[in-house]
Amino acid sequence: MIVVMKAHASEAELQAVMAKIEALGYRPHVIHGVERNVVGCVGDEREKHQLQQLESFAGVENVMPVLKPFKLASREVRPEGSRILVDGVEIGGPKIVVIAGPCAVESAEQVQAAASAVKAAGAHLLRGGAFKPRTSPYSFQGMEDEGLKLLEQAGRTVGLPVVTEVMDPHDIELVASHAAMLQVGARNAQNFSLLRRLGKTDKPVLLKRGMSTRLDEFLMAAEYILSEGNPNVVLCERGIRTFETATRNTLDLNAVPLLKQWTHLPVLVDPSHGTGIWSLVAPMALAAVAAGADGLLIEVHPMPENALSDGPQQLKPERFADLMRTLKAVAAAVGRTM
Amino acid sequence: MIVVMKAHASEAELQAVMAKIEALGYRPHVIHGVERNVVGCVGDEREKHQLQQLESFAGVENVMPVLKPFKLASREVRPEGSRILVDGVEIGGPKIVVIAGPCAVESAEQVQAAASAVKAAGAHLLRGGAFKPRTSPYSFQGMEDEGLKLLEQAGRTVGLPVVTEVMDPHDIELVASHAAMLQVGARNAQNFSLLRRLGKTDKPVLLKRGMSTRLDEFLMAAEYILSEGNPNVVLCERGIRTFETATRNTLDLNAVPLLKQWTHLPVLVDPSHGTGIWSLVAPMALAAVAAGADGLLIEVHPMPENALSDGPQQLKPERFADLMRTLKAVAAAVGRTM
Amino acid sequence: MIVVMKAHASEAELQAVMAKIEALGYRPHVIHGVERNVVGCVGDEREKHQLQQLESFAGVENVMPVLKPFKLASREVRPEGSRILVDGVEIGGPKIVVIAGPCAVESAEQVQAAASAVKAAGAHLLRGGAFKPRTSPYSFQGMEDEGLKLLEQAGRTVGLPVVTEVMDPHDIELVASHAAMLQVGARNAQNFSLLRRLGKTDKPVLLKRGMSTRLDEFLMAAEYILSEGNPNVVLCERGIRTFETATRNTLDLNAVPLLKQWTHLPVLVDPSHGTGIWSLVAPMALAAVAAGADGLLIEVHPMPENALSDGPQQLKPERFADLMRTLKAVAAAVGRTM
Amino acid sequence: MIVVMKAHASEAELQAVMAKIEALGYRPHVIHGVERNVVGCVGDEREKHQLQQLESFAGVENVMPVLKPFKLASREVRPEGSRILVDGVEIGGPKIVVIAGPCAVESAEQVQAAASAVKAAGAHLLRGGAFKPRTSPYSFQGMEDEGLKLLEQAGRTVGLPVVTEVMDPHDIELVASHAAMLQVGARNAQNFSLLRRLGKTDKPVLLKRGMSTRLDEFLMAAEYILSEGNPNVVLCERGIRTFETATRNTLDLNAVPLLKQWTHLPVLVDPSHGTGIWSLVAPMALAAVAAGADGLLIEVHPMPENALSDGPQQLKPERFADLMRTLKAVAAAVGRTM
Repeated sequence: MIVVMKAHASEAELQAVMAKIEALGYRPHVIHGVERNVVGCVGDEREKHQLQQLESFAGVENVMPVLKPFKLASREVRPEGSRILVDGVEIGGPKIVVIAGPCAVESAEQVQAAASAVKAAGAHLLRGGAFKPRTSPYSFQGMEDEGLKLLEQAGRTVGLPVVTEVMDPHDIELVASHAAMLQVGARNAQNFSLLRRLGKTDKPVLLKRGMSTRLDEFLMAAEYILSEGNPNVVLCERGIRTFETATRNTLDLNAVPLLKQWTHLPVLVDPSHGTGIWSLVAPMALAAVAAGADGLLIEVHPMPENALSDGPQQLKPERFADLMRTLKAVAAAVGRTM
Repeated sequence: MIVVMKAHASEAELQAVMAKIEALGYRPHVIHGVERNVVGCVGDEREKHQLQQLESFAGVENVMPVLKPFKLASREVRPEGSRILVDGVEIGGPKIVVIAGPCAVESAEQVQAAASAVKAAGAHLLRGGAFKPRTSPYSFQGMEDEGLKLLEQAGRTVGLPVVTEVMDPHDIELVASHAAMLQVGARNAQNFSLLRRLGKTDKPVLLKRGMSTRLDEFLMAAEYILSEGNPNVVLCERGIRTFETATRNTLDLNAVPLLKQWTHLPVLVDPSHGTGIWSLVAPMALAAVAAGADGLLIEVHPMPENALSDGPQQLKPERFADLMRTLKAVAAAVGRTM
Repeated sequence: MIVVMKAHASEAELQAVMAKIEALGYRPHVIHGVERNVVGCVGDEREKHQLQQLESFAGVENVMPVLKPFKLASREVRPEGSRILVDGVEIGGPKIVVIAGPCAVESAEQVQAAASAVKAAGAHLLRGGAFKPRTSPYSFQGMEDEGLKLLEQAGRTVGLPVVTEVMDPHDIELVASHAAMLQVGARNAQNFSLLRRLGKTDKPVLLKRGMSTRLDEFLMAAEYILSEGNPNVVLCERGIRTFETATRNTLDLNAVPLLKQWTHLPVLVDPSHGTGIWSLVAPMALAAVAAGADGLLIEVHPMPENALSDGPQQLKPERFADLMRTLKAVAAAVGRTM
Repeated sequence: MIVVMKAHASEAELQAVMAKIEALGYRPHVIHGVERNVVGCVGDEREKHQLQQLESFAGVENVMPVLKPFKLASREVRPEGSRILVDGVEIGGPKIVVIAGPCAVESAEQVQAAASAVKAAGAHLLRGGAFKPRTSPYSFQGMEDEGLKLLEQAGRTVGLPVVTEVMDPHDIELVASHAAMLQVGARNAQNFSLLRRLGKTDKPVLLKRGMSTRLDEFLMAAEYILSEGNPNVVLCERGIRTFETATRNTLDLNAVPLLKQWTHLPVLVDPSHGTGIWSLVAPMALAAVAAGADGLLIEVHPMPENALSDGPQQLKPERFADLMRTLKAVAAAVGRTM
C-alpha cells in the first residue's frame, strides 16, 4: 500500500499515519516529495486491506494498493496453468473444449435432440438449465429436479458429462448428484454464501463473470472457492453491461488474454450471452479462440423459435455444426487442437 | 409487443409470424408501412415475454415490448403510494425516515456508541451489518450470530428498531428473529432464491438496487417479493457502477423521481455507498431529499479510522448530527417533515 | 509517480528503471518490499506524464500517478473559489445563478416568448442554441447566424445577457460578437482545437462535461482553456452515459461536491440534458442546489410540443416559474440566495 | 414510429396525438390494446425524428422508433459491401488490410525506422500522428506541419500510402496534401463541423468510434460524411469506455459482425487503443480478424520505451512481424487473405 498525504498535511498528521501503520504490523517508509509526501507500507500482504482505513485519517489524500488482491488464483502460484478434469474431459490443456446445449431443459425430447446434435458436431460437454435465474418472476423458471434428471439422462445416452447451474447453496448436493460440473451464473458471481459452500466440495465449478464485475473482483470471487479448498475452478467471460444497447451484453474479449496473464485458471467464453443474437455467436466464438480462450459455452436448441427462454441467442444444430468446422481451422492457426 | 418485420420480409414470413402470435393466444394487428410492416400483438399482458421468441423467426427485425414488465409494483396499482410500517416507524409517508448506524457490528461498545449517537441526532432506525458481503474472502466477514444479538440489544437500549442484511435464504428465520427489517444488499439484488424466500415472510424488506441493475429490472426484483405475497418492500438507490472512478459508485438520483412515478413503493437513498467518501455524504443526503426520497440510509461510526470495513465512507457522530439539522430545513423546503 | 516492479524483476531491470528516472530529471527512491519493490519518483511534477512510459520497461508491473493532473484548475490555486462575471452576473458567489431558455432558437416569436417568460420567473441569463450539434444530419441544425441575432435581440429586450454554443473554432469571433458567454457542448468537451482557441479569448466559457469524461479529464479540458490565458471558465455537469436507459443520461450529482473540493471553478448543473424527461427536471434541479451547485442550466420552451429539438425535456413557462419558487426555499436551506 | 399511449389516456388526448401526426405529414394507425392503445405512424421516414416531439403530449407514455436512423450507410443501399481505394490499396475486399506505424511522429529517424519495419513485415499503409489530441495540455501535442512532412517522406521512401489524424476543420486541406487517408479520432467522433467538412472532400476517411458512441450513433456520424457527398468512409472500432479499469478501453468486437450486417462500409479494428497494453495487442488483433474485421490499425514503435506518447501500447517491430505471420493463418482459417 502507498499512502499519499495531502499537499499541506502537517508533520503531526504524518506521524499519526505512521503510528497507525506500525500498529497494524507494517513498516512505514516515507518518501519526501517536492509537493507532498507518500508513505510506503512494507510487510506481509494478506491483511493489507485494513490499511485502506487510513483514508479516514486527517492529512491523507488517498491510499493506493500496490498488489493485486488475489493470491491462490494468481498465475505466480502455478505458472504452467491449471488443467481441470471434468469426468475425463480436460479443460485448460492444448485442446479447445466446447460445452453446448440448450439454454433450458424443456422436455425429454428437446434435451435429447439437443444432446445428440451437439455430440454429433463434436462438443465435449452438455449444458442445460434446470434452475433458471429469470429477470421476471412470471417467466419460465426451469423444470428444477425433473430437469436435472432429464439432462443427466440425455448426457448419459450420448456419452457427454453434463454442466448445469446451481443458484441456492442448499441445492448444491442435489445438483452435484446429477452433474459433473456446477455453474455459477452471472447474477450470483458475488453471492458469497454460494461460493463459499462450493469451495467445500471438490466438484469442478464453472464461474461466470458478473455483469459489472471487474477482472480483479472476478478473481476474488474465484478466490472464495479456492480458499475453502476446492481447486477446480474454470472462469467464463460472458459479456459485461455497458451503454451499448444493440447487443444484449458487450463481450469483453480483452479479458481473455489478460486473465491468462493474471491467473492459472482456465478461461472459457460464452458468446451466446455475450451477444444475445444468434447471428453474432459464430464470429465471436471464433474470435474468442483466436484471443486465447481455452474453450466455449454455446447455446444450441433444436428449434430456437419454440424455446421457452433466450430463443434469439440459441443456434440451430446445423449452424453449430458449421461453426465447429471453422473453429477447428482457427484453433489450428493459433496452435490449439479441438 | 410490437414485432418489426425486415424491409424485404416475404408475405410467407409475415404469415408465419401472425400464426405464431395467434398460437400464443394474442391477436395480431398488421400496420403496412412505406418501408416495412409492423405487427402489434393484442391480448393479456402477463405472458407476453414469450412473444420475445419471435425474434428467432425469419423476416423479423426485432421485437419491442410496449408495457413495463412489472405489475404489482406499478404505481397504477396503488396511486396514493404505499406506506410500510417497521415496528411503528412509517416509511413512505410525509416524514423523511433516517436509518443510521455502522457499516458492520464490531463490538458491543462500538454498536452501542453508534446507536446512542444516531438516536440522539434524531435517526428513526438503527442499521449495522452482522453478515458482510466482502469482495475479498480475507476481509472481515462480520460477527454473524453474535453481531445480530449485539445489534438487537443496542437498538433495544436506545429504543430504535433495527435493520440488518441477510445473504443466505436459510438465514432468514434467524435474522428475522433479531431485526425489524431485512436488507437485501446490492450483490444479491438478483439472487432470486433469496428474494422468493423473503416473499414468503411478512417482514419489511429493504431492497437495494444492484450495481448494474436497470430501473425496470430493479422493480422486477421487487416483483419477486411482492408476487410471493409480501407487500412490505422498500427500495433503496445506492449508486451504480459507471466509468467514473473518482467515487466508489455513481449515485443515480434520477432514479428517485422516476421510481416515484413508476411505483407505489417507498424509495430511500444510501449516500454512503453511493459516494464512498464521507465528505460527499452530507451534500448527497440533502440532494436525495430535495429530489423526493422518502428517507436515507447513512453509515455512522463512532471512530471511522478504526472501522473494520468501509471506514472512508462512514460519518463521525458530530458530522451526522450537523447533517440532520440541515436536512430538516431542506425537507421543509420541499414540503416534508422529519 | 510510483513505479511498481514485478515480483521477480531482476536487479538489472530495477537499475534500468532507476537510470531512466534519472535521465528524465527525477530522483528515484526505492522501497524494498516483502514481495516486490516500488520506486518513488521525486521531482517537479509538470512533466511527470513522461514517466508513464516506464510501463514499457521489462520488470515493471505498472506506474501509478500520485498527483491529480490538473494544476491551474486546482482548488489549491485559489482556495476561496473563483467568481466569474458574465456581463454583470456573478457565477460562483453565494447567489444561485439560473440560465434558462429554449434548446434551440426557432423564430423571433419563440425566443422572445421564452425570454420574457424566464425573465419574469427570475432567471439571470438567457440561453438558446443557434448552432445545434445533432446526432442526425437530417435533424434541424439550428438557425445559425440568424439565430444568433434573434437570441441577442431577445436578451436585450428583456435585459438578460445571453449564452450560446460554439462548435467550430472559426466561429468563435462571430458567436462572441452576439453572446456574453460561450458554451462548449458535451460532444466537444475534448475538442482540443476549440478549447485552445477559446483560451486565447477572455470571454466566459461554459464548459460542459463530456458524456464519458471522468472528472479529472473534465478538469484537464478546463486546463486547456486556463493554460492559454482565459481564467473565465464555468463547469457544467449534464449527465453521463451509463447502462441505464430509462433516462437520457445519468445525472452525476456526486460530481458537484467533489468538483467543489478539487477546483476553484464554479459548478453548474443541467438537469434538462441530465434527465431528458421534463417531469424529472424540477426535482433534479432542487437536488443539484442542495448538493452545492452554483447554478442551473434549464431548458424552457413556450410550447414544448412544437419544439424542433428536445421537446420532451423542455419545461413549460408555468412549470419553470413553480420550480423557481421552490428553488428559493431549498437555496435558503443550504445557506444560498437566489 | 410507434406512439404508446398511457393506460388511462383520454379519447381527446388520443385525438390530439393523431391530429399532430397528420399535421406532420404521416398517417396515424391505431391499435386498440387490452390495457392501452398504440399508434403507428405511416409515411416517408426521412423526417420521422420530428415525431419524437409527441413525447411532450399529454397522454403519451413514450415514442419508439421502428427504423434505424441511418440511410446512406445502411447495408440495404449496397448489399455487396463497399470497397474503398486508398492510393491503390483496397479496403473492404477479401484481403485483410493492416495499417501500422507509431502513435506519433517524433523525428525523421523514428518515423523512418517504423516505416521500414512495418513495410518489411507486410503492412499495407503507414500511420503516424502529427496533430495529437492529448488529455493534458502539458503533454506532447505532436510535431504538426513538420510531422506531416516527415510522415509523407517516410511513406514515400518505403512505398506505403500514409494515414494521419485531422482535428480541426480548417486543417483538412493541409493534412490532405500530405496524406492518402484522413483519420477522425475518437474524441472527434461527434464533431459535426469536422465531419461535414470532410464530407465535402473526396479523400478516404478513417472514422473512429467515440468512447461512448452507440453503434447507431456511429453510423450516423458516418452519415454526416456520406450525406455531404463523400462515399469513402472506413469505420474503426477502437474500444469503448466501461467500468473495467484493467484495460485502457473495452474493445467491443461484437461491433464487428453487427456493423457488417448493418452497413456496407468496411470495418477495421484498433487493438492498440482497444487494450492500451502491448501484450494484449496480438491476441486481440487475431480475434478481430476471426470476428470478421476487414483490417487492423496497429501502433508500432522502434523503441516503445522512449516513445513520447502511448509507449505502453506500442509493439516492437519484431513482435509486429510475429503477429503478421500468425495473422495470415487466422485470416486463411476464416476465408480471407493478407
